[in-house]
Amino acid sequence: MSTAQHPPGRARPGGRTARTRTAVLGAVFDELGDKGFAALTMEGVAQRSGVHQATIYRRWRSMEGLVCALLTERSAAAIPVPDTGTLCGDLRTLARGIGAFYEDARNRAMIEAVVSAAARDPRAEEVLREFFDDRLDVAGVMVRRAVDRGELPPGTDAEAVVGALGAPFYYRMLLVRRPVDLELVESATHATYTAAKAGAYVRSDA
Amino acid sequence: MSTAQHPPGRARPGGRTARTRTAVLGAVFDELGDKGFAALTMEGVAQRSGVHQATIYRRWRSMEGLVCALLTERSAAAIPVPDTGTLCGDLRTLARGIGAFYEDARNRAMIEAVVSAAARDPRAEEVLREFFDDRLDVAGVMVRRAVDRGELPPGTDAEAVVGALGAPFYYRMLLVRRPVDLELVESATHATYTAAKAGAYVRSDA
Repeated sequence: MSTAQHPPGRARPGGRTARTRTAVLGAVFDELGDKGFAALTMEGVAQRSGVHQATIYRRWRSMEGLVCALLTERSAAAIPVPDTGTLCGDLRTLARGIGAFYEDARNRAMIEAVVSAAARDPRAEEVLREFFDDRLDVAGVMVRRAVDRGELPPGTDAEAVVGALGAPFYYRMLLVRRPVDLELVESATHATYTAAKAGAYVRSDA
Repeated sequence: MSTAQHPPGRARPGGRTARTRTAVLGAVFDELGDKGFAALTMEGVAQRSGVHQATIYRRWRSMEGLVCALLTERSAAAIPVPDTGTLCGDLRTLARGIGAFYEDARNRAMIEAVVSAAARDPRAEEVLREFFDDRLDVAGVMVRRAVDRGELPPGTDAEAVVGALGAPFYYRMLLVRRPVDLELVESATHATYTAAKAGAYVRSDA
């Protein structure tokens, strides 16, 4: 196995590189929860993880690089894409997953940190764009299955439907600055389901 | 008229205070458009506005304070609340207004700067929260009129409907990192209208 197959920082799973990664990203996550993004420092991450600041800088370059790596590591696995057999069930399960994920203050601080990083650093913006492109594509399978089952009109834009489900959560957290709650889970599910059935997300070129 | 009636920085409209405010916030806005948030500095704002850095620090305290003042000054007037006679017309007009507002790179950079500021500074977070509380309340009149006309079910949460219309735009800009477009204007309008009619935003305690 050639090391060229592994991008830096992801090589040798289970080895020292992986342990360092786990320790550092875990420390970032816990620091976000304890102190919030405003007080996040490289020094704090180094102290908490027991990894030298120089090592952290060498691998992740900046705080922006760190929070982006954390996002990639945590979110995809934490909010699985459901397969309940019906579109409404899938949408509700995914909405509950998003709601539960962002009940944790560390996850709220993480997404806030990543959006902040993207505002300052084009590399962080690219990580965020790729992350959401990928998430929308992967979760879009729920919608494509619903089209195949005849639950949704042909030509429905799968990523638009998934985005419509997620958007109210980020709007609530980042703009309205209020907690997400069960009422939001229910209204996002009901609204996205009803609108998708009515053809609101059929592509205009379809 | 006592000066105690006027909070600092808002006193004597048309006077020197107001002129300084206009020059400084105009300079912040133009700097955001030319250079983006990452390159925004107090020095750049001072040079562009012709106002001393010390004066800017004294009045607005920080970059966070500046971008929040800019948000409050610009957005509310720039996206008026429509009254077309129908809910669908009102939603479409408001969605077009949001879309047109964020076609301007300076406005995109402004909202990004404010969200970033809120992540770092509790005072900026409070400004953002108050701003959106106020906007949702003011624009909610469209929804309350629709309920009165019998277009929407009684108990519909006006702020939830307005938030549902706006959420996809902020999600697109801040998370997905793609431009807003006419397709988004149409899908947000259609989806919000259909879902509101179907009762997706009726308060659970109604």
